[in-house]
Amino acid sequence: MSHNTFGHLFRVTTWGESHGPAIGCVVDGCPPLIPLNEADLQPWLDRRKPGGSRFVTQRKESDTARILSGVFDDGDGPVTTGAPIAIHIDNEDARSKDYGEIARAFRPGHADMTYQAKYGVRDHRGGGRSSARETASRVAAGAVARRILGDGIVIRAGVVQLGPHRIAPDAVDFSAVYDNPLFAASAGVVPAWEAWLDGVRKAGSSCGAVVALEVTGIPAGWGAPLYGKLDAELAAAMMSINAVKGVEIGAGFGSAELSGEDNADEMRIGPDGGIVFQSNHAGGVLGGISTGQPLTARIAFKPTSSILTPRQTVTRDGTETDLRTKGRHDPCVALRGVPVVEAMAACVLADALLRHRAQIG
Amino acid sequence: MSHNTFGHLFRVTTWGESHGPAIGCVVDGCPPLIPLNEADLQPWLDRRKPGGSRFVTQRKESDTARILSGVFDDGDGPVTTGAPIAIHIDNEDARSKDYGEIARAFRPGHADMTYQAKYGVRDHRGGGRSSARETASRVAAGAVARRILGDGIVIRAGVVQLGPHRIAPDAVDFSAVYDNPLFAASAGVVPAWEAWLDGVRKAGSSCGAVVALEVTGIPAGWGAPLYGKLDAELAAAMMSINAVKGVEIGAGFGSAELSGEDNADEMRIGPDGGIVFQSNHAGGVLGGISTGQPLTARIAFKPTSSILTPRQTVTRDGTETDLRTKGRHDPCVALRGVPVVEAMAACVLADALLRHRAQIG
Amino acid sequence: MSHNTFGHLFRVTTWGESHGPAIGCVVDGCPPLIPLNEADLQPWLDRRKPGGSRFVTQRKESDTARILSGVFDDGDGPVTTGAPIAIHIDNEDARSKDYGEIARAFRPGHADMTYQAKYGVRDHRGGGRSSARETASRVAAGAVARRILGDGIVIRAGVVQLGPHRIAPDAVDFSAVYDNPLFAASAGVVPAWEAWLDGVRKAGSSCGAVVALEVTGIPAGWGAPLYGKLDAELAAAMMSINAVKGVEIGAGFGSAELSGEDNADEMRIGPDGGIVFQSNHAGGVLGGISTGQPLTARIAFKPTSSILTPRQTVTRDGTETDLRTKGRHDPCVALRGVPVVEAMAACVLADALLRHRAQIG
Amino acid sequence: MSHNTFGHLFRVTTWGESHGPAIGCVVDGCPPLIPLNEADLQPWLDRRKPGGSRFVTQRKESDTARILSGVFDDGDGPVTTGAPIAIHIDNEDARSKDYGEIARAFRPGHADMTYQAKYGVRDHRGGGRSSARETASRVAAGAVARRILGDGIVIRAGVVQLGPHRIAPDAVDFSAVYDNPLFAASAGVVPAWEAWLDGVRKAGSSCGAVVALEVTGIPAGWGAPLYGKLDAELAAAMMSINAVKGVEIGAGFGSAELSGEDNADEMRIGPDGGIVFQSNHAGGVLGGISTGQPLTARIAFKPTSSILTPRQTVTRDGTETDLRTKGRHDPCVALRGVPVVEAMAACVLADALLRHRAQIG
Repeated sequence: MSHNTFGHLFRVTTWGESHGPAIGCVVDGCPPLIPLNEADLQPWLDRRKPGGSRFVTQRKESDTARILSGVFDDGDGPVTTGAPIAIHIDNEDARSKDYGEIARAFRPGHADMTYQAKYGVRDHRGGGRSSARETASRVAAGAVARRILGDGIVIRAGVVQLGPHRIAPDAVDFSAVYDNPLFAASAGVVPAWEAWLDGVRKAGSSCGAVVALEVTGIPAGWGAPLYGKLDAELAAAMMSINAVKGVEIGAGFGSAELSGEDNADEMRIGPDGGIVFQSNHAGGVLGGISTGQPLTARIAFKPTSSILTPRQTVTRDGTETDLRTKGRHDPCVALRGVPVVEAMAACVLADALLRHRAQIG
Repeated sequence: MSHNTFGHLFRVTTWGESHGPAIGCVVDGCPPLIPLNEADLQPWLDRRKPGGSRFVTQRKESDTARILSGVFDDGDGPVTTGAPIAIHIDNEDARSKDYGEIARAFRPGHADMTYQAKYGVRDHRGGGRSSARETASRVAAGAVARRILGDGIVIRAGVVQLGPHRIAPDAVDFSAVYDNPLFAASAGVVPAWEAWLDGVRKAGSSCGAVVALEVTGIPAGWGAPLYGKLDAELAAAMMSINAVKGVEIGAGFGSAELSGEDNADEMRIGPDGGIVFQSNHAGGVLGGISTGQPLTARIAFKPTSSILTPRQTVTRDGTETDLRTKGRHDPCVALRGVPVVEAMAACVLADALLRHRAQIG
Repeated sequence: MSHNTFGHLFRVTTWGESHGPAIGCVVDGCPPLIPLNEADLQPWLDRRKPGGSRFVTQRKESDTARILSGVFDDGDGPVTTGAPIAIHIDNEDARSKDYGEIARAFRPGHADMTYQAKYGVRDHRGGGRSSARETASRVAAGAVARRILGDGIVIRAGVVQLGPHRIAPDAVDFSAVYDNPLFAASAGVVPAWEAWLDGVRKAGSSCGAVVALEVTGIPAGWGAPLYGKLDAELAAAMMSINAVKGVEIGAGFGSAELSGEDNADEMRIGPDGGIVFQSNHAGGVLGGISTGQPLTARIAFKPTSSILTPRQTVTRDGTETDLRTKGRHDPCVALRGVPVVEAMAACVLADALLRHRAQIG
Repeated sequence: MSHNTFGHLFRVTTWGESHGPAIGCVVDGCPPLIPLNEADLQPWLDRRKPGGSRFVTQRKESDTARILSGVFDDGDGPVTTGAPIAIHIDNEDARSKDYGEIARAFRPGHADMTYQAKYGVRDHRGGGRSSARETASRVAAGAVARRILGDGIVIRAGVVQLGPHRIAPDAVDFSAVYDNPLFAASAGVVPAWEAWLDGVRKAGSSCGAVVALEVTGIPAGWGAPLYGKLDAELAAAMMSINAVKGVEIGAGFGSAELSGEDNADEMRIGPDGGIVFQSNHAGGVLGGISTGQPLTARIAFKPTSSILTPRQTVTRDGTETDLRTKGRHDPCVALRGVPVVEAMAACVLADALLRHRAQIG
């Protein structure tokens, strides 16, 4: 990962600002002959799309992805050609309003102050480059990555903690995630969570959340020691998502409290002669390489920084002010982060697949 | 990061196995004219060196680093020349014993099974490439990185949780770390922790821990959106350290429970006209770019996988067995992980400095 | 360089096929606060644009570049923000004709056979990804690179050999290049060259050429030993241009015939105390690092592979056939290669500037 | 390629100076289970080794390579493990003499002036990092690369032009190269060339040369458009070798004089149903991808810059002086460049193999 590109062999370069004419990405390194068209991308984009419920931003975007290159239909339907795949998404609801106050003042918790400090200029319109709108490009790229991985690898994520409210580990049910507007990994918590989040929303406040990720079907052997560890790549990918402040693999921070005996994932031989682990504290990775067990991770999102309560801040000219952030915002940015977490996992794994194949054949 | 190299402009490539003739690294991209000799490396290596107390492995290694290239003394003492710096550390206590059982059986929690699955071969002697011995090279590279960063940037880490025992956040005192054999960030906890860890050790068991990191003196503006975020780079670097299972920045997982109001790090203008933050939930990073506040992170280490209690496992030939791991081991691998955490932070920051300078001048 | 990206810190990723909806590129790593708008790109694109004379393809393309991201006007005109700059060029004259024969048969000298062999599929429409149309993206990126380099660095190229006809070294005049339709680096040769090339053109044949490059104003010290040598980077960049088969720096192949005495570029101290070289066989590079003298190179282009004379070839189904390539083609692809050579040089140098600044400050 | 590393997946990082304690390299990304020991490296190193005849430097170096990591013998002989392979070569004849004059004055044609300009310091002892001694590491890495490529890919190079003396293309015989001290690709020219080069040598002068390269056995499909073209990678690799000033592929600069008809490599179907080219002006590469024909290239070396005739130069303090370079030098640095050219070709191809396998499977 560097600058605006991530991945080594499956490489994604994203571009675009929140209120510019468009955003998009270039997906490079894709193997050829994979059936791919725009309809393969859209369902994933629709999951992340704004405006789907009262719990997400009311910005109106169709998030329609167009593929401008890298696929070709020679009579049997469009397939990848091995050439770079350019994906383009128009910004349709970038409002031409007066950004006056935000243009001058730094919104606490946002990247306003740091972009200004680094670059001496920032596109303040809707957060510019640092807007979560950029994650639409990630989701589009993730859809391509899923096609490389195939149906045998199943990537699922969901909200398992909303503010202080948690889903018990044994109650996590990823199949519920896209059937409720909270992306919650349990149908049972939804009514209570909706009521609570309505309170947060109406108060003009916001909350954080934890998203759990589980990937099944990864064969043993993917990843690469020591500085290309699968879990290190995954951690970097997750930490690159807006508002993420923590990543843990398997037992994660909980493993610090375990004894060596309890943490050991013991092994037996299964009926088919393969290795069967008796537990998965490792989260599917040992020494940076996949074990064949499910890859599990948890990702912490901070609360949305845009809130209606005035906060103390300063302007780029060095004067103190108070700022309340009006406009259209997600009360909990983690919700729409769920498809983004899945997409980044897909990209990391597609890259791992190609790298593994390169060295091992 | 890829394969065995990390860093973009300040690049470190490590090599070597636990029981081979030597380990080492090549540090490339270092600016010229920085005074550097072997005496600059040794104090940091001594902190990580085995055999220093009963709480770490009893393997006897002097960990003497030799610099084989990249420095030149033109009369005023050795300085870096801009050429790659090769650092070489002999393995002095690699025992020629019979590894029979470990050669065949996979130690639970170790990378034995995954290396075998990926490569079809593994250097089982002392863990081979996946041994924590490799981290000596990281510490040597980190010492070079510190010279680039200069004295204004202070990197400190320490154990803040040992198994279930925690140091309260307001009791953390990094100045205590290298004065106690537990690398604990508080002198007060040491007697109780020593007694508890003695129990773990004598039982042939092991425990996990959490290491806190704090870096002061980083100016605002380092780091690079979106896929070279300072916190993403740091997370990957930490997750690449043996036994690390979780990384959080600033308030980390705790931020998921905060409201937007509480999480906002408000800003005022200080007496010198600069920005003064009223809190640091962000951990010194917003949008992937440093704020000028201290960079803070916490890193979770799992318990040492080598324990004396027999665990169920399998052999590479597919038979079931029970395995107890004899030999010389750290009861808590996180302890000597403290200087490694510092070193990796130094490398990430030296790289960030060079990258920032490239784009911004 | 890898896949479809070139550059280390100043990074250009291109995408698009000859007859797809558009082509474009993403320019990443650009320093902020550089004034830039579409009018800065267009003059360079116009130089490469097809249809300008009877000596280039008659395809009608306005080659209008749109900037979709990475610049922002905060009141004083648009400047770069440090974010990726997406540049988009529509394909306006991609004809919907029957490609029947070319779809099946491999045009000799083109990449048809190799793309098919590698990918098992190829976008045959107008050459697809391997079309020289892609070089418009390079020219757009080069225009951005020139803004980074500033006016002190002057990059000029021109045709110095057309088929067997050469311009004597001491007659090379780069100021003539864009005043004649042959991009010839001498006004004097134009009438004779035009007559000769008309004959080639009317015969449905094609010819090769040699382009000379000269860059003045590069300070001493750019470049990086050993695998990032300035001349090695330049050679790779040039060899990546369609139809280029040879690159030489300074005296190049001629240096093989020189004695050590004759090849030595002797040095004296100039009136201002700086080093003055007495000759420039080195072409401005020693040990991969710029000397401060002009960077000089020569680039050989093979003849356009598309010719009207039937040539023996085979189809992707393995049958023999004869093929004549109808359609719109440049009789000498090197002519419009001149602005491409300049653009690639600009990109290499902008990257070298940033890399130099990173390590040296 | 960047800094001191080349290759994308098969990555070689070299380190060391001419008169330091040692030189070496780290070869990373090697597939596992390839039989490899030091005896596999030595024959190639012996070909490049100094002191073999009166036509090369008289420095006495055994160039004994030690492998310090990355191979493991589990009972059936040492094989690669997939871990980085550290190779170490001691400097045995680095003379502790007074370098006084060379320390101050810049040798014309050498990198002395540019290293000083860039870094503000240079290890002047024997040329330091810019010495051709570094190429021993390349040859060692190339030996590893050959093991990956296997015996089906045959890489051969030889001198085809010594100063003004050329071997006719149809007289080139690579089998003669290592049977004569001039590395000449024709036994017939050796007596005359020896006599001529003796004259050059005795006069304290030097000469340039052209080395031809031919690689057979590469399947169609290796390489990657557009910025990872096989010929672009090869050009960069060759241009990174000391003293190289030009690279051409296939017909190279000669192709500029060809008509499209003559340059076309026509295709027919062979007896086994495969494609048979009727000529190879392309040098085995079309569109950056291998055609299956032999890869052919020619590389121009400038004369050795170290000569006994005094040349005008300046010191780092800015005074004018005359300098004659005493000491041990190759009268024609291209001769020992032959095994280096082969080694770099091997590294480029091993990398291409891995990259191809990654994307195509």
